[in-house]
Amino acid sequence: VDDLKVPAAPDALFFIVREGKLLLSDAGELPSGHSLAGQAVIALGRLGERPVFALPLTGEAPAGAQLVGLRQCFGVLPDGLFGLAGLAVQLVDFQRSHQFCGACGTPMRPGEGDRARRCPSCGLRVYPRVAPAIIVLISRGTGPDTEFLLLRGPRQAPDVFTTLAGFVEPSETLEAAVHREVGEEVGVKVRQVQYRFSQPWPFPHSLMLAFTAEYAGGDIVPQPGEVEEAQWFTVSDLPQLPPTFTASRRLLDDALATLRLSGD
Amino acid sequence: VDDLKVPAAPDALFFIVREGKLLLSDAGELPSGHSLAGQAVIALGRLGERPVFALPLTGEAPAGAQLVGLRQCFGVLPDGLFGLAGLAVQLVDFQRSHQFCGACGTPMRPGEGDRARRCPSCGLRVYPRVAPAIIVLISRGTGPDTEFLLLRGPRQAPDVFTTLAGFVEPSETLEAAVHREVGEEVGVKVRQVQYRFSQPWPFPHSLMLAFTAEYAGGDIVPQPGEVEEAQWFTVSDLPQLPPTFTASRRLLDDALATLRLSGD
Ligand SMILES: NC(=O)c1ccc[n+]([C@@H]2O[C@H](COP(=O)([O-])OP(=O)(O)OC[C@H]3O[C@@H](n4cnc5c(N)ncnc54)[C@H](O)[C@@H]3O)[C@@H](O)[C@H]2O)c1
Ligand SMILES: NC(=O)c1ccc[n+]([C@@H]2O[C@H](COP(=O)([O-])OP(=O)(O)OC[C@H]3O[C@@H](n4cnc5c(N)ncnc54)[C@H](O)[C@@H]3O)[C@@H](O)[C@H]2O)c1
Repeated sequence: VDDLKVPAAPDALFFIVREGKLLLSDAGELPSGHSLAGQAVIALGRLGERPVFALPLTGEAPAGAQLVGLRQCFGVLPDGLFGLAGLAVQLVDFQRSHQFCGACGTPMRPGEGDRARRCPSCGLRVYPRVAPAIIVLISRGTGPDTEFLLLRGPRQAPDVFTTLAGFVEPSETLEAAVHREVGEEVGVKVRQVQYRFSQPWPFPHSLMLAFTAEYAGGDIVPQPGEVEEAQWFTVSDLPQLPPTFTASRRLLDDALATLRLSGD
Repeated sequence: VDDLKVPAAPDALFFIVREGKLLLSDAGELPSGHSLAGQAVIALGRLGERPVFALPLTGEAPAGAQLVGLRQCFGVLPDGLFGLAGLAVQLVDFQRSHQFCGACGTPMRPGEGDRARRCPSCGLRVYPRVAPAIIVLISRGTGPDTEFLLLRGPRQAPDVFTTLAGFVEPSETLEAAVHREVGEEVGVKVRQVQYRFSQPWPFPHSLMLAFTAEYAGGDIVPQPGEVEEAQWFTVSDLPQLPPTFTASRRLLDDALATLRLSGD
């Protein structure tokens, strides 16, 4: 339903989006919609009683407001608001990247009663994408001798080590994706692959599926181009870790809490 | 890497695909590639030592061969071959539906060293889609009194009851998708939502994420248009169930096996 016009609801919230960034006032607030009359918006749902909408920013950011990267809003915006911000950025980007039918080139139209885009000519229907990606904490040993396999990628902050991640391929189970990615990125074998939790990760539209696994053999061989450095770290000597809101950090914090509970 | 030409490898296997169907010989075998020289193919990987390729069927099915729906091949083709068949159908369909850039309408090109399609004009890059969908077995009671909530949809065989399923939305966890879909389709509440396994489901490109959950309250209200009938079934009086290779059936069979082990 993305052919709505801005409604009269005076308490509506608006996510105004450009290239993965959100328009926020200098005070860090979402804009109220009084100057948006007549523009097409995407209905996102409700926050409490307030209806929430997304729309693309077409011109310049107005005075007293600025575009802020979604990544900088993670852990800053309250949880419910961050989820909606991620949805806003994804749906605006989905609309931008589905103006034309991929099969026949005809201009696409909004779906009827759902979030799909559809082709009036050949009938192609496309839904907003969710790209499942596995992320896995590999451990070795027990108690205070436990070690974690952490790595650093070429597109990451220089001193931060994270757990291993990668996209699920078509025709593959999550568990097969874990074994394949671990093999490709660091060349070791794992067993006891266990699902822990999931986390939407809107950069640009991933869904992180978090696992733990036990080391089962092999020497670390970092994949050229994808992994700069990969090594074992003992729990008492961990490197700099990613921020608390990441799946990577949550896997580590959960594992450390379990070790502490079991009394190391 | 979808700009390969048919290679000389005499032991290569070919999946020849049209509209979700596979070309099989009258004996049910995959074609050997001798008449395909010069055609563009998609490299899928290897089956044992044999290289495997996919390509679209452009003309009519040749004499002695026919197009067979992928669904009819499930549980018939051996497991490894079925996975590759699903991949073949998905990648051929991906290519067909990504001829033009969705953002600017320019003809797309194959990616370099990956399965993406990319736009030479605006730079848009698109990967083959995997659409995560949850599927959940809801139970109530214990031991021989256990009941399962099963349903029948409008697009299903008339007497077959399945577990509840639905697509994960952008910016949603798997667990949130379970609660939302259960609420929408049958109006009840659940707790103890537990991940069990995953299964690629290439119709057209889903990844089923299978869960169990316990009933936590509410009366069944089937969603108009989506659910024809939904009811509780005791384990000793189950309706007709979907085939053994479905995620739905595997959830049920696993639950029944657990009940039997715990000695009902
Ligand atoms: N939340 C966390 O803690 C955390 C930590 C690490 C990685 N991640 C995320 O996990 C995902 C995968 O991690 P990564 O390091 O492999 O990512 P990446 O961004 O390094 O991508 C690796 C390669 O995958 C390919 N790719 C991109 N999108 C794809 C898609 N939709 N399907 C298939 N292939 C695709 C590209 O060729 C890319 O070079 C990314 O979204 C990343 O942001 C999250
Ligand atoms: N393996 C099994 O045992 C089993 C059992 C039941 C359903 N399924 C599969 O689960 C999936 C979901 O089941 P369902 O009954 O909700 O499906 P469905 O096919 O009935 O789709 C429900 C609605 O979801 C929408 N939709 C379609 N593709 C979408 C996408 N990629 N993202 C978001 N919305 C989309 C459409 O509006 C459709 O009407 C389907 O792929 C179905 O084949 C598998």
